[in-house]
Amino acid sequence: MFDLPLDQLRQYAPTVAEPEGFDDYWRGTLGAAEAVPVLLDVRPEPTDLRLLDTWDVTFAGFAGDPVRAWYTRPAGVDEPLPVIIEYVGYGRGRGTPHERLTWPVAGYAHLLMDARGQSGQYGVGDTADPHGSAPGGPSPVTRGILSPQGYYYRRLITDAVRAVQAARLLPAVDPQRVVVAGNSQGGGLALAVAGLASGIAAVLATAPFLCHLQRAIEITDVGPYGEIAGYLAVHREAEAAVRHTLSYVDVACLVRRATAPLHLGVGLRDRVCPPSTVFAAYHQYGAANGGSVPQRSLHVYPFNGHEHGEAVHVRRQLRWLADLLADR
Amino acid sequence: MFDLPLDQLRQYAPTVAEPEGFDDYWRGTLGAAEAVPVLLDVRPEPTDLRLLDTWDVTFAGFAGDPVRAWYTRPAGVDEPLPVIIEYVGYGRGRGTPHERLTWPVAGYAHLLMDARGQSGQYGVGDTADPHGSAPGGPSPVTRGILSPQGYYYRRLITDAVRAVQAARLLPAVDPQRVVVAGNSQGGGLALAVAGLASGIAAVLATAPFLCHLQRAIEITDVGPYGEIAGYLAVHREAEAAVRHTLSYVDVACLVRRATAPLHLGVGLRDRVCPPSTVFAAYHQYGAANGGSVPQRSLHVYPFNGHEHGEAVHVRRQLRWLADLLADR
Amino acid sequence: MFDLPLDQLRQYAPTVAEPEGFDDYWRGTLGAAEAVPVLLDVRPEPTDLRLLDTWDVTFAGFAGDPVRAWYTRPAGVDEPLPVIIEYVGYGRGRGTPHERLTWPVAGYAHLLMDARGQSGQYGVGDTADPHGSAPGGPSPVTRGILSPQGYYYRRLITDAVRAVQAARLLPAVDPQRVVVAGNSQGGGLALAVAGLASGIAAVLATAPFLCHLQRAIEITDVGPYGEIAGYLAVHREAEAAVRHTLSYVDVACLVRRATAPLHLGVGLRDRVCPPSTVFAAYHQYGAANGGSVPQRSLHVYPFNGHEHGEAVHVRRQLRWLADLLADR
Amino acid sequence: MFDLPLDQLRQYAPTVAEPEGFDDYWRGTLGAAEAVPVLLDVRPEPTDLRLLDTWDVTFAGFAGDPVRAWYTRPAGVDEPLPVIIEYVGYGRGRGTPHERLTWPVAGYAHLLMDARGQSGQYGVGDTADPHGSAPGGPSPVTRGILSPQGYYYRRLITDAVRAVQAARLLPAVDPQRVVVAGNSQGGGLALAVAGLASGIAAVLATAPFLCHLQRAIEITDVGPYGEIAGYLAVHREAEAAVRHTLSYVDVACLVRRATAPLHLGVGLRDRVCPPSTVFAAYHQYGAANGGSVPQRSLHVYPFNGHEHGEAVHVRRQLRWLADLLADR
Amino acid sequence: MFDLPLDQLRQYAPTVAEPEGFDDYWRGTLGAAEAVPVLLDVRPEPTDLRLLDTWDVTFAGFAGDPVRAWYTRPAGVDEPLPVIIEYVGYGRGRGTPHERLTWPVAGYAHLLMDARGQSGQYGVGDTADPHGSAPGGPSPVTRGILSPQGYYYRRLITDAVRAVQAARLLPAVDPQRVVVAGNSQGGGLALAVAGLASGIAAVLATAPFLCHLQRAIEITDVGPYGEIAGYLAVHREAEAAVRHTLSYVDVACLVRRATAPLHLGVGLRDRVCPPSTVFAAYHQYGAANGGSVPQRSLHVYPFNGHEHGEAVHVRRQLRWLADLLADR
Amino acid sequence: MFDLPLDQLRQYAPTVAEPEGFDDYWRGTLGAAEAVPVLLDVRPEPTDLRLLDTWDVTFAGFAGDPVRAWYTRPAGVDEPLPVIIEYVGYGRGRGTPHERLTWPVAGYAHLLMDARGQSGQYGVGDTADPHGSAPGGPSPVTRGILSPQGYYYRRLITDAVRAVQAARLLPAVDPQRVVVAGNSQGGGLALAVAGLASGIAAVLATAPFLCHLQRAIEITDVGPYGEIAGYLAVHREAEAAVRHTLSYVDVACLVRRATAPLHLGVGLRDRVCPPSTVFAAYHQYGAANGGSVPQRSLHVYPFNGHEHGEAVHVRRQLRWLADLLADR
Repeated sequence: MFDLPLDQLRQYAPTVAEPEGFDDYWRGTLGAAEAVPVLLDVRPEPTDLRLLDTWDVTFAGFAGDPVRAWYTRPAGVDEPLPVIIEYVGYGRGRGTPHERLTWPVAGYAHLLMDARGQSGQYGVGDTADPHGSAPGGPSPVTRGILSPQGYYYRRLITDAVRAVQAARLLPAVDPQRVVVAGNSQGGGLALAVAGLASGIAAVLATAPFLCHLQRAIEITDVGPYGEIAGYLAVHREAEAAVRHTLSYVDVACLVRRATAPLHLGVGLRDRVCPPSTVFAAYHQYGAANGGSVPQRSLHVYPFNGHEHGEAVHVRRQLRWLADLLADR
Repeated sequence: MFDLPLDQLRQYAPTVAEPEGFDDYWRGTLGAAEAVPVLLDVRPEPTDLRLLDTWDVTFAGFAGDPVRAWYTRPAGVDEPLPVIIEYVGYGRGRGTPHERLTWPVAGYAHLLMDARGQSGQYGVGDTADPHGSAPGGPSPVTRGILSPQGYYYRRLITDAVRAVQAARLLPAVDPQRVVVAGNSQGGGLALAVAGLASGIAAVLATAPFLCHLQRAIEITDVGPYGEIAGYLAVHREAEAAVRHTLSYVDVACLVRRATAPLHLGVGLRDRVCPPSTVFAAYHQYGAANGGSVPQRSLHVYPFNGHEHGEAVHVRRQLRWLADLLADR
Repeated sequence: MFDLPLDQLRQYAPTVAEPEGFDDYWRGTLGAAEAVPVLLDVRPEPTDLRLLDTWDVTFAGFAGDPVRAWYTRPAGVDEPLPVIIEYVGYGRGRGTPHERLTWPVAGYAHLLMDARGQSGQYGVGDTADPHGSAPGGPSPVTRGILSPQGYYYRRLITDAVRAVQAARLLPAVDPQRVVVAGNSQGGGLALAVAGLASGIAAVLATAPFLCHLQRAIEITDVGPYGEIAGYLAVHREAEAAVRHTLSYVDVACLVRRATAPLHLGVGLRDRVCPPSTVFAAYHQYGAANGGSVPQRSLHVYPFNGHEHGEAVHVRRQLRWLADLLADR
Repeated sequence: MFDLPLDQLRQYAPTVAEPEGFDDYWRGTLGAAEAVPVLLDVRPEPTDLRLLDTWDVTFAGFAGDPVRAWYTRPAGVDEPLPVIIEYVGYGRGRGTPHERLTWPVAGYAHLLMDARGQSGQYGVGDTADPHGSAPGGPSPVTRGILSPQGYYYRRLITDAVRAVQAARLLPAVDPQRVVVAGNSQGGGLALAVAGLASGIAAVLATAPFLCHLQRAIEITDVGPYGEIAGYLAVHREAEAAVRHTLSYVDVACLVRRATAPLHLGVGLRDRVCPPSTVFAAYHQYGAANGGSVPQRSLHVYPFNGHEHGEAVHVRRQLRWLADLLADR
Repeated sequence: MFDLPLDQLRQYAPTVAEPEGFDDYWRGTLGAAEAVPVLLDVRPEPTDLRLLDTWDVTFAGFAGDPVRAWYTRPAGVDEPLPVIIEYVGYGRGRGTPHERLTWPVAGYAHLLMDARGQSGQYGVGDTADPHGSAPGGPSPVTRGILSPQGYYYRRLITDAVRAVQAARLLPAVDPQRVVVAGNSQGGGLALAVAGLASGIAAVLATAPFLCHLQRAIEITDVGPYGEIAGYLAVHREAEAAVRHTLSYVDVACLVRRATAPLHLGVGLRDRVCPPSTVFAAYHQYGAANGGSVPQRSLHVYPFNGHEHGEAVHVRRQLRWLADLLADR
Repeated sequence: MFDLPLDQLRQYAPTVAEPEGFDDYWRGTLGAAEAVPVLLDVRPEPTDLRLLDTWDVTFAGFAGDPVRAWYTRPAGVDEPLPVIIEYVGYGRGRGTPHERLTWPVAGYAHLLMDARGQSGQYGVGDTADPHGSAPGGPSPVTRGILSPQGYYYRRLITDAVRAVQAARLLPAVDPQRVVVAGNSQGGGLALAVAGLASGIAAVLATAPFLCHLQRAIEITDVGPYGEIAGYLAVHREAEAAVRHTLSYVDVACLVRRATAPLHLGVGLRDRVCPPSTVFAAYHQYGAANGGSVPQRSLHVYPFNGHEHGEAVHVRRQLRWLADLLADR
C-alpha cells in the first residue's frame, strides 16, 4: 500500500483550493471556443461491422481547431438514442472504429473523441495540437505548463466540453440524454465536463486523472503525474508556476459544480492515479453546484491498480446506466 | 532482435520430426472423446448488450469433462450464420460475455471456449481440469508433462476439437462455415484444430503458441515456454521425457494435415512466441494434407512483440474473412 | 522498512478472529484422515553418505492420499532417537536425500515431508495432489481457495499432522520427543502442527508463512501472498469467499492451542512473509491452550529479509534444542 | 556484445542509400533559411565566473525561428579566436552558462546552441519549436516524422548549420577556424554540419546519433531510436513513410560531402547509438566530397557504452585540436 | 516519498548521541597525523587548458600516507586567493585535471583531494589505502568497520583535515579564506572538516553522506548505506560493533563544533543520502561550538533525488560564496 | 542463449596463449611461499553436530599470511581418510562449521579454505588480505590488477596450493588421496591447483571462474567478470595492463599441466561464468602435462545458469568419487 489505507481514504476529503479567477478563466475559455459553429464534418466510415454504423466526425474544439471523433450507433436504428461521449486515456487517440464496441453494442449512440496531439505512445489518433510555441516540455502533460493560458489541458478540456455540444447536433441523438465517460485521462475529462457543461445526464469515470493535482505530483513518480514531477526535477525553479497552472485544471475543483449522477471506480493499488486523489475528487463532487449533492457511487477494487475493475466494472456500468436512463 | 532476422525467417522451414505413433496418438485420443454426446447444456445468459444474444454453453471435452463456452450472435437473427470458434490465451478463461465483441458485431455467430484449469492469472474462467494426479509442475503448461498420455495439452487440444463438433449443433449455425481463431495459446489451438478436425472453413491465428516446441524452449525464457524451461531447470533429468511429450502436441506437426485457408500474424520482436517458431509452423502448414497447399498468408509486424498487429490486424482479419466467405 | 518498525512490532498483538466452527472444521478434517492406517511403506534408499541411513517413506495424508518423505538417521544407531519432522518451503519438495543434512548430522532422526503438488518451481518432489476439480487458480496457494472444504492448505496441513503420527511409528523413534520444524511454508506448517497435534516436544520455525493472512495479502505483493493478491486482482468478486477460506488455515489462530516450547526467527526486511504477520502469530502462540503460555523465543534479524538468520540461526537452533531435550 | 564484434565493425562499411532529391532537399531547405539575417540579438550575460565572458545570443534558425545560444570566451581577450560550436544531446538544452566550461577554459571561443523544443527531459533550454501541427508523435524524434518536409530534424539540422553562420559574425571570432562538436545528438548534428556547411575547420563528435538510421531503428529499443521503434509499434502502417523521412536526415549520407578533419569516439557497448551505425558513418565520411578523404580518426572504448571515453576522450580532443589548429 | 514529508523534516532535530571518548578519539587521531610535515610534493601538471595552471600535489594524510590532489588556479595570477578544498563522491577519485573547472574558472584556487582506495567504481584516482589487514568487508564503507580504530573513514576524514593544512602551505593561497566543499561523500567530508578543523571560512555541502548513520542504515538499502546494511545482513552478529564504530564518524555529531557559515543542499527524493539524515545534521550544525550558531542555509529540491539542485544549486553556491568572501 | 550453442561449445577449443615467463612466475611465487612451515595452528572447534569432529585450522599462505580453514571429519574415525579440499565462491568465506556437510557425511575428511579478504558480500570469513597498497579497485577481483606481481589472485591461488600441503599434514589424512573441489571461484581454484600442485587424486569443479579470462571479460557484464569490465570502463587506458595481468592467472592455461581425473559441471545459461570459457578450459585440461590426457568428464545442464546441476550434480560427484577412490 503506497497510498492511504481504505478506512482513511473513506474520510479523505481535503478542500482543494480554487485559484483566483477560476470561474472567469473557464467562462472566458469556453466562451471563446463557443463563438464558432461546432460541427465541421460528418461523413460515413465504412467498416466490416454489420451491426453498427460509423461516421467520421470533425468538430471545432479549442480555438476552433478541428477535432476528430468516431460516431457509432446500432445499424438501421433511426430513433433518437442516448449518446455516450467517451474520452480516451493518456498517450492514446480514437484509434480505429472497431476498438471500442461496448456502448454501441449495448444500444447507445457513441461518440469517441480523439485527444489532440497525443497519438503515438499507446494508440493512434488523427488530431493535431497546432499550438507549438508555448513554453514547457515535449510531453502533452507538460506542454505549456508554465501558464494557465498556454497549458495543454486548457485546450483538451475545452475540446471535451465542445464534444457535448457537437454530440447534441448529430443525427438521431436525444440531447437530454448525453452521458460522459472515460478511463484515466478520459475519466478526468468526463469529470471535468460534468462540472463545466450543463444538462449532462450521467457520468461514468474510472481511475480518473487530473484529480487533486497538488498532491498527485508529490506522491507518485510514474505515469503522467511522474512526467510532471520529472519536469520539475529538471526545471527546479518552476514549481510555483507549475502549481499555479495546475490549479486551473484540477478536476477536484471542477467537479464541485457537477449535478449529474456519478458512477466512479478506483483501484486501491493504483500508482498512476493514486486513490487518495480520486477520493478527494469524489468527496468534492457536486459540493458546490448550488443544489443538492447528486447521486454518486464509488466502486473500490482493493487488489487492483490502474486497471481497476475492468470487465466486472463494465458490467456494473452497463447495469447502472440502463437503470438510470430507464427512469427518464 | 533476439530471434532470426526477417530475411532468414522467410527461409526458415525446418522439418519438425513427428514422434512415432503420432497419428495413432491423436486418433485414439479424439476417438475416445467422441464416444459421448457433445452438447451438454445451452442456456440463455442475460446481458445488457441489446444488439446481441448470448448463451452459456457446456459441452463434453476430453474424457467427457464439462467445458464451458459463451455462444453469442446478433440478436433476432434466425438464419444460419457462419460461426467463429475462438480460443483464449494462456492464463485466461472465457471471462464475461461482453469482453470479446468483434466477431458477433461483424455479424457472425461466435463460440468462445473456456480453457480448463487456467483461470486466475490474467482472466477468469469457469472450467475445471479434473485430472490432478499426473506428475509434473503446477502451472498448466507443465501439468502432466512427463508423459504424452497425461499431458495437459492433450486434454486442451481435444477440448478445442470437440468445440467444433459442439458448434455445429448450436442453433442457427451453418455447419459448412466453421472458422477457428485465436491469439497466442488460442492461435496455437486454432492451428491444431485445423490439422485435426475436418471441414474447417478458415483459420485465423496470431502469435501462436505451441509451434516448434523443441526450439521454443531453448530460445526464450519468458512466458509459458519459459515455464517449461524453468521446470527443466529444476527437473534436470526430465529433459528427454519432456521433449518426447512435447513432440505429440507440436502444432508445427499438426498443421501439416490442414486444408483450410490460413490468415496468420506475427510480431518480429515477440519473445513469448518467438517468430522463428511461427515461421516454422507456417512453412509446414498443409504440407502433408494429401492435396495442395491451402491459401495462406502471413502478416509480419516488424516493430511489435507478442501484441503483434492488434487493431490493424483485426481490420485485416475482418476484411479477409468477409471476402473468403462471400465466395462460398 | 515496508512493514512496522521494531518497537511497534514488539507490541503488535492483534486478536485474529477465528471463524465460526473453526474447531469443528479441524476436528472433522483430522478425524476423517485418521480413519485409515498411516504408515504405507518404508523402504531403504541407497545413498553415498556413509554416516547416515535413509528410507523412502510413504504415509497416508489427507483423504488417505500417499505422501512421500525421507527418513534419515545416524547410521548404525539403534537406540530410540528424538525425531525432527521438517516441512519444506513453497514451490519445493523433499528433493534428494542428501540435501538437508543438518539435523541427522546433529544426531537426530529426521523426517522430511514432501509437499503435495508443489514440485517444480524451486525444488523437486514426488507427491501428487489428486484433487484437481476444486475451483480456484492453478498455483498451490490458490487451489480450491473459494471454499474451506476444498482449499489446498486444508490438505497440506492435514498431511503435516499425519506426518507426526507416521513418525511415531518409524523404527527407533522416541515418540515423546517429536519436534516439528520448517522455514517459510515449512515454518507455517510446523506452527500449525503445534496447534493441532498433541505431545509435540518442540517447535522450530523461521520466517513462517500462513500467519495473519488477512493482513498479509494486503501488505505485500510478492511471494505466495502476492499470488493470492494476484488471484483477487483477477477474481474481483471473490474477496469475501477467499477471506472466509483463509480464516480456517490462519496459523495465528491455530497456534493459540499450542503447548510446546517455541524457537522462532524472523527478518525485519522480509517482504515474502512480513514481520508483522509473524509477530502477530508469536503473540498468539499458546494463548488459548488451556494452560500457561509455553516457553517461547523470537530471534529478530534487522537487516535480513526472507533469508533471516541462516547459518547463525541454525547454530542457535541446534544449541537451543540440545539444551531443551537434555532436560528430558 | 549486442552489436557486431570489433573486427567486423572495422570492416563494416555499408553503402547507405541516398533518397531521390537528397541534395535538392537540403539545398532548398538551407536556401530558404538563409534568406533572412542570421544574428538577431547578442547581449551580455552576467555570471560569477571571473575568467570568462558570456553573451546570450539569439539567431535565426529554420524558418527564421529564434534560436538561443550561449557565447562564452576567455575574459578580456580581444583577439580573434577559433570558435567551437557545440550541439547538445537529446532531451537537453543549452542549460545555464556555467555548465560546459572545457572549451572556453582551453582558450577557445565557444557557442553552445540550444535544441528547439527539447527542454525538460534531462536539461533546460530556452528555445521553442513553433511548428506544432505536423503529424507524428509528441517526442522530438517523432515530431512530423511522416514527411521529410515536416520532420523535426530538418529544422534542427538547419538550426545547426545556421549556427555556423551566426558564429562567424560574433565579436572576435576567426571565421576560418570554426569547429563543430557534440556528443550523441550533438555529435550527429556536428557531423551533419560537416556535410552541409562549407569551410569547417574540424569536427569533434562522440557517440553520434542520426547515423545509419535504417539499421539503428532495427537493432536497439532504447533511447531516441527506441522512441522511433515505439512509434512504429503503434503506427504499424507508417513504416515506409518513416523510413522515407529518415533517409533525408541520415548522417551517414550527409557526411559523404564532408571535408574537415574528423575526431570521433565510440563505446563498443553503446546501446543508445550502436557502434555499427557509427562505424557506417565513419566509413562514409568524406567519401563523396569531390576530393580526397579528409584526415579522420576513430577512438574505440571497448568496455564503455554511450558514455564512451568521457574525460579520457576530452583530453585527447583537447590535444588533437591544439595540434591541428597550431598548423594553421 | 520514502522518507519524512517536508513539514516534518523541518522539525526533525534528533539529538544524535556522541559515543564515549568522542573528542579524545579525534584529538588523538588528528594529533598523531599532524606529527609529520604535511606537504610532500608539488609539481606542475601540463594540460591543454590555457586559462588555468595545475599542480600535482602529494600531502601526508592519516599515518603519513601519501595522498594525491590536484591544485588548480587561474593562470598567471600571483596574488593570494581564497582556496576551495573539494572532496569527491564515493567510488570516485580526483580524476583528471580538467574534470572540475567551476571553482577555478570562478577565480578561486582549488584543491581537489583524492579519496584513498576508492578508485575504480565511477572515477579514477591515484591514492592507495595501505591498511589492508583490518577486518571488515571489501568495499570502502565496510573496510575495518568492526572497530573505531581500524575504520576506513577514520583515515579518510583525517586526510580531509590534513588537506586543509596542506592547502594553507600551497603557493599564493590566502590561509584565512579556506573553504571546504563537496557532494555526497564529499559533502560529508566537508561537514566533518568544518567540525574538526579551525579557521574554516565557509562550507558548501550537497546531499551529504555520513550524517545520522544509525538511522541511515535502517531506512535505505541503496548506495553506500546499503552496503553497510548488506554487510550486516551477512554479519548478523556484528550490529553492535558496527553501530559503535559508526558513532565515531557521524557527521551529525562532528558538525556540532562547527563555526563556519554553511550553504547546504538536499533533494527530498534522495534515497542514497535520505533527507532526514541531512536535516538531522543541519539542525546540529554549530549547536555545540561554544559560541553562537553560525549562518546556515538549506536549499531543498522537492522533486530531486541524490542529484539535488545541480547547475541551479551551483549558481547559488557561486553567488553566495562571492557575497560572503566579499565581506572579508 | 547469450553464449555459443551446445554443438559449437563441444568444438570450442581455442589455444589460450600463455604469457612470457608463465612457468617462472608460478615457480617463483610458489617457491617463495613454501619457504616457511605451512601448518600454523590446529585447534578443536566445538559444534552441536555429534556425527562430526571439527578443527579450526590456520596455515601459512602467500607471503606466509595466516589463512583460516575448517577441518571436519567423521567423529571417532581414526584411520587415514581421503581429504576433500574445498574452495569457496566469490564474496564468501569459510562461514560456520555446519554449513558444508556433504563431504564429511559421505565419509571423507574435509578442509574448507577461507578466501582472504572476501568476507562480507554473501558469506562470512575470518581471513584478512594484508596487502592493501597495490593499485587497482576495491573489489577482490580488481585488487592489484595492474600488475601480475600485485594481483589478488596470485595470492589466492597460492593459498589454494598451500592448502594441499597443509592438508597432508593434518591428523589421519591419507596424503595420496587429496581431492580438490569447488564451485564458481572455488571451481576455478580447484582447477588451478590441479595444474600447480602434484599428486592430486581428483578434481571436482562446477561453473568454474577464472577460465579463458580474455574472452570472459568481453562477453558478460555480470558477476566478477563484470566487475573487471566495469573497472575497465572507468580505467579506459588500463586494458593492456589488465589483460597482461589476467594472462598469468588464467585457469585455461594452468590446467594444461594437470594430471588428475576431472569431474566438471556447467550450466548452458550461465552468465556469470559463461559456458564457452568453461569448455575452453575443459579442452585444455591436461593437454600439456607431459603425459596422456587424464580421465575427464563434463556434465552439461542445458536449462541452468550459474546454479548448474545442484543436488543432481552432487549425487553424481559422490558416486564418481566413490568409484574412483575405490579403485585405489
